[in-house]
Amino acid sequence: RYQDLDQIIIGVIGGDGIGPAITAQARRVLEQLLADEIKAGKVVFKTIDGCTIENRAAAGKAIPDDVLAEIKTCNVLLKGPTTTPRKGDKWANVESANVAMRKELDLFANVRPVKVPELGIDWTFFRENTECLYAMGSQGLNISDDLAIDFRVITTPGTERIARLAFEYAKNNNKKRVTIVTKANVVKTTDGKFLDVCKQVAGDYPDIEVDDWYIDIMTAKLIDEKRRGQFEVLILPNLYGDILTDEAAEFQGGVGTAGSANLGKQYSMFEAIHGSAPRMVEEGRDIYADPCSVIRAGAMLLSHIGYQEKADRLFTALEECTIKERKLVITGRPDGATGAEFADYILSKI
Amino acid sequence: RYQDLDQIIIGVIGGDGIGPAITAQARRVLEQLLADEIKAGKVVFKTIDGCTIENRAAAGKAIPDDVLAEIKTCNVLLKGPTTTPRKGDKWANVESANVAMRKELDLFANVRPVKVPELGIDWTFFRENTECLYAMGSQGLNISDDLAIDFRVITTPGTERIARLAFEYAKNNNKKRVTIVTKANVVKTTDGKFLDVCKQVAGDYPDIEVDDWYIDIMTAKLIDEKRRGQFEVLILPNLYGDILTDEAAEFQGGVGTAGSANLGKQYSMFEAIHGSAPRMVEEGRDIYADPCSVIRAGAMLLSHIGYQEKADRLFTALEECTIKERKLVITGRPDGATGAEFADYILSKI
Ligand SMILES: CC(C)[C@H](C(=O)O)[C@@H](O)C(=O)O
Ligand SMILES: CC(C)[C@H](C(=O)O)[C@@H](O)C(=O)O
Repeated sequence: RYQDLDQIIIGVIGGDGIGPAITAQARRVLEQLLADEIKAGKVVFKTIDGCTIENRAAAGKAIPDDVLAEIKTCNVLLKGPTTTPRKGDKWANVESANVAMRKELDLFANVRPVKVPELGIDWTFFRENTECLYAMGSQGLNISDDLAIDFRVITTPGTERIARLAFEYAKNNNKKRVTIVTKANVVKTTDGKFLDVCKQVAGDYPDIEVDDWYIDIMTAKLIDEKRRGQFEVLILPNLYGDILTDEAAEFQGGVGTAGSANLGKQYSMFEAIHGSAPRMVEEGRDIYADPCSVIRAGAMLLSHIGYQEKADRLFTALEECTIKERKLVITGRPDGATGAEFADYILSKI
Repeated sequence: RYQDLDQIIIGVIGGDGIGPAITAQARRVLEQLLADEIKAGKVVFKTIDGCTIENRAAAGKAIPDDVLAEIKTCNVLLKGPTTTPRKGDKWANVESANVAMRKELDLFANVRPVKVPELGIDWTFFRENTECLYAMGSQGLNISDDLAIDFRVITTPGTERIARLAFEYAKNNNKKRVTIVTKANVVKTTDGKFLDVCKQVAGDYPDIEVDDWYIDIMTAKLIDEKRRGQFEVLILPNLYGDILTDEAAEFQGGVGTAGSANLGKQYSMFEAIHGSAPRMVEEGRDIYADPCSVIRAGAMLLSHIGYQEKADRLFTALEECTIKERKLVITGRPDGATGAEFADYILSKI
């Protein structure tokens, strides 16, 4: 549907910490790949400043209103990591911008591919992105000084839409198996619903094999060389998706190498799956930060907006540079390549 | 304190599926190691039948009353896996006996060591064992057909006691570092409390380094060869502990090799961390089931009741048989060794 637009506006949100540095490299790569389209006015890049932790703290909002308004003028977004404050930090009351953006733009699907051909790994995780323990944010209850409660929310439509997306993806990409991951033996009400609804959706795809596993043993199965190859498409509630995709990304070179698509009906946002690494900035090492994650997110963005051939060239280059020639992965240390050098290298391979 | 008793009663709960087969082998190993103590009447073994899924379903209780009463006559327990029914099973309404036993006996600490010397791994997980998403079991809410809610409960005393145990363990075993694992950036109320209370307890142990990580990135760090060696003692809320210990056990040969101590003020129970594998029984393969997990649980039991030297001999034998001579690990297939052969082999090494 993007190709039907007169113009595709790609909003670029630098974020915090190393975000601006690595996002700039990803943008440079995309701009080169889209040079003709930019010249023809078909594609424009738009910088969205102001989604920084300082601004968010000042506004007392996870995403300041003006930033959110600007975001909504774009057709698709490329986003660097934003700082989610830790307990005890000076910004501890600022909510996660990641989580807020997913909610505000109703980006219900977090799609995270992890591919390591030489390990036989080709996983696509469909992480539900708005419910579970993320739904109520900081609205838990402190019943007394000694008793705290959080709420885990799962809905039928929320589960149905992520399951549908995963099965459609499996069908359209000739995948043989979809795996549902829950802890329905213990967390019976919500995971029970999640599992039930996924299985119901599965009924519409009789040619696809379905299995379900508990999240605890799944973390072991990803490591098991004899078994991990059997997984193709996985559907998970929000938090299990968060956990399992970090583990999965490790096989590909770490969270620094993994991109992620946050998809909704109206908006889509592509981002790194790692944090903003403020310490690297403090120590002046942000030029050495690895832009691989955001470049990969950029490749996913290209594919999403209909430039599949350009996306494929970028994916192939990334695979060569990060996996086959792993020495060129940025180390974050001054003896490694800079982010710009890495981006140049990627561009030289395209 | 066990050594002060006139007699130590070790209750043996076979459980379901492969449970009776593997527990029998573990008991045989312990009986041989404790032969003198048994002869002198210092130690007795007591078989606790009746904690089967059939009986539990008939009683409509996770643990039938008479079984629970018998359990409470023992000083310490060795337990095989019990079946936790899956959604849709004929027994789907029977609650997990594991979870129920932990609650009924107030076994607040689930201690799970994972040791793989040649990988530089020597982790001891302290999993809180009664709270979190486990506290309310199936008492979640179906607000409507489409909206399900579960409750995550964390208390100050519940966190304090697991943290205290972990730090005491660290202190008494010359560990340099304790790592707290939460998702306090998102699950702010309950994980925030867990993190706060752990850090407060840490204040009493100024010589021990403390760090905290989020559960998502922890699953990646365990895989990272350059980083995993830095972890020694870990404290986790119930569900994260469930998840991370299955992953960790994989490095040791899988959940089939890992034992676990469930400790309370009054009772203690030692068990396998894996399931009951009913399919192996149906196919008549239970004699090939790997008793390693329950034997390791038995070694932990020996250490706990004060037979440290016997425990060490058993741990050493297990390490040799499961890691150094991995071929002898039971495969569950008729071409592998039987559980009895494995137990014989262990005994021959002691
Ligand atoms: C930063 C954090 C809030 C976020 C999450 O938990 O979703 C991150 O871990 C991710 O996976 O995108
Ligand atoms: C069987 C199940 C209820 C149990 C749990 O989730 O605690 C198991 O996975 C474990 O780790 O002991």
